[in-house]
Amino acid sequence: MEERFYSRLGRSLKPGVIARVVLAAFEKARRGEKLISLTGGSYDPESLPVKEVEEIIRDIPPEDWRGILQYGSNLGSGRLRAELAKFSGEVGIEANAEEIIVTTGSQQALDLISRILLDPGDLVIVGEPTYLQALASFRLYGAEIETTPIDEEGMNIDALEEKLEGLRAEGRNVKLLYTVPSYQNPTGTVMPESRRLRLLELAEEYDFIIVEDNPYGYISFEGSMPKPIKAYDKEGRAIYLSTFSKIVSPGLRIGWAIGRRGFIEKMALAKMNADICSDGLSQYVAAELLRRGMAHRLIDRIRRVYREKRDLMLESMELHFPEEAEWREPKGGLFLWVKMPTGFDADALLDDALERGVAYIPGSNFFTDPSVRNYLRLNYSYPSREEIAEGISILGELFKEALRH
Amino acid sequence: MEERFYSRLGRSLKPGVIARVVLAAFEKARRGEKLISLTGGSYDPESLPVKEVEEIIRDIPPEDWRGILQYGSNLGSGRLRAELAKFSGEVGIEANAEEIIVTTGSQQALDLISRILLDPGDLVIVGEPTYLQALASFRLYGAEIETTPIDEEGMNIDALEEKLEGLRAEGRNVKLLYTVPSYQNPTGTVMPESRRLRLLELAEEYDFIIVEDNPYGYISFEGSMPKPIKAYDKEGRAIYLSTFSKIVSPGLRIGWAIGRRGFIEKMALAKMNADICSDGLSQYVAAELLRRGMAHRLIDRIRRVYREKRDLMLESMELHFPEEAEWREPKGGLFLWVKMPTGFDADALLDDALERGVAYIPGSNFFTDPSVRNYLRLNYSYPSREEIAEGISILGELFKEALRH
Repeated sequence: MEERFYSRLGRSLKPGVIARVVLAAFEKARRGEKLISLTGGSYDPESLPVKEVEEIIRDIPPEDWRGILQYGSNLGSGRLRAELAKFSGEVGIEANAEEIIVTTGSQQALDLISRILLDPGDLVIVGEPTYLQALASFRLYGAEIETTPIDEEGMNIDALEEKLEGLRAEGRNVKLLYTVPSYQNPTGTVMPESRRLRLLELAEEYDFIIVEDNPYGYISFEGSMPKPIKAYDKEGRAIYLSTFSKIVSPGLRIGWAIGRRGFIEKMALAKMNADICSDGLSQYVAAELLRRGMAHRLIDRIRRVYREKRDLMLESMELHFPEEAEWREPKGGLFLWVKMPTGFDADALLDDALERGVAYIPGSNFFTDPSVRNYLRLNYSYPSREEIAEGISILGELFKEALRH
Repeated sequence: MEERFYSRLGRSLKPGVIARVVLAAFEKARRGEKLISLTGGSYDPESLPVKEVEEIIRDIPPEDWRGILQYGSNLGSGRLRAELAKFSGEVGIEANAEEIIVTTGSQQALDLISRILLDPGDLVIVGEPTYLQALASFRLYGAEIETTPIDEEGMNIDALEEKLEGLRAEGRNVKLLYTVPSYQNPTGTVMPESRRLRLLELAEEYDFIIVEDNPYGYISFEGSMPKPIKAYDKEGRAIYLSTFSKIVSPGLRIGWAIGRRGFIEKMALAKMNADICSDGLSQYVAAELLRRGMAHRLIDRIRRVYREKRDLMLESMELHFPEEAEWREPKGGLFLWVKMPTGFDADALLDDALERGVAYIPGSNFFTDPSVRNYLRLNYSYPSREEIAEGISILGELFKEALRH
């Protein structure tokens, strides 16, 4: 295919940092070496629910198999949506099955929402830093993205209000605000209740829609999940997204969105054009994991595993990282966000790190201004305990050397 | 969600004829009545590969489960792509695994291709009649659609050449041509080899890309699948799509696209934004169905089943349909395309048909000019033998009444 055939979007698509790391891992493997990946948000390999999924599939009666292997509803299976309604009720979200659509991971939910809401030039606000790759959907449909700062307590609401006022003064109205209020990626911050309530008030006052993305909320290390914004949402301002990818299994590709019934039906029509319907077997397994209480037990287990891995990574960092490095202990989620002194170049050092056998995500991938290079994101969910200790020790040495030069 | 928030696309999305039929079926069921559906392209419920899928899953070793339940490659599993390369080789398409991407059904392939190729105003040509819903992806990315007629031998190449010349004279260049060369939906027509070769020549001469969609080719009632256009494509002009949905199981959501390596990699980048990766278990099952030769046996079986059902529907139509009705015997695929005299209104009669307990798809859904109302599409893959006989008898009576008035 010649370059001239590609669309504007097609030409703009380039492999990101993850692809670079994957390639490096491949090259290493070819040379018989290994690469410790502290990059993506993959599941702890030892904790994947193999036994549970096998057990559920073994029990499927023949009459259910027919439904599984046939085309399904573009809203998702009724059985799964009923279970998700109950599951969401447990964290304070009152929704019935008609207000829920099953998506192929929450990435697809972002894509479908963008399709039905965003026209070229529409304004979207996101907190910064944020994982920009996840937001490519907004740009795909022509939206303009404005950012507002994330501080120690998530999205800074005063700064947001100022931003909204400024935009309104310019005659620009915000259509959609995207937020990860619990254990935000990459900062790990949590918005306190007061900020969640004020955000809903601002949505009413400035007339925008909130997309609340909650992949990490269930992975809380102290007490239960912070109550979602959607649970306070009396006016139907928020669309809530969550997924099994971080808490049960990424490979099942089970995400869901909760919103007003009419909106969910529009998402289902958009799903017809995207992929018709989601996989039947995954949806069946997901519904049974919920119905049998297995999902709840898996969440309890993965919380314990990830807390322990977080602790191990923190200890290793205390031991090996240069004293100039700064970080806060995340109270949940999968990531550690590290600030280095100005002048430190996490992008430039990645090649050295890969050469020494460790991968991380440079912080520039989380800022709209790619010149911010003194941050990095570390993942503790995927690597083994040994890899965490070894990886952090290697990075610590590399970073110390870099700072001494 | 208030109407004012929707994008242009969001506002335009409305439930189609299938949704109307689903709703009618639901209403019927509530009243304890049944509805015979001769509408969609669902799989024969009695032939779904329950035994085969169960057997494959029972055999999965623990080490493979880990990969299944984790995030996978956005190109699809290497194992499945290697099997698909072999499978495609059997119908004359020479491709290696790097030239294949797994998609969530072929609908997703259409969506991804549109993303990376189509800018607003780009010109797409499709044969008419065609199932327009499938082509919504082209419009979503702003393409303009031009049609060219389908005759008894599929896309009429002389008419196409004339169209291309006319467009070129207006300074308009075609970027993409969409075709279903084997057992086209809805007409069931097959493009002969000579037309396939000329189409490739025209693609070279007028510099456009061919999207060859082949969901039905394997369901051939006389001999093997007509050789795909892609098998003759030396210049890399064609992107080939196929799917398990019609030949193995729709619920597995396994489709694939074959093209040049660089193009397939662009599709994979677009898939990152769409849904990250496809379901792990489905891909594993699909690879094993191919590796064990089960897919081939399923195709042989479904060919026999559908040929028998086609024959039964044809016999019933001979017996019950008004003599003014015209149709040709399809040599493969899932559909019968019926022409009624001018003045016959298949759209208006659908409500009466639903009331009497039978559903079909009015032909207007296959024409860009919705005033063409004297055609209808009938499906014989999904209904049981009894339902085919009863459904056709009811429709025959209804249509005779309508023509006598």
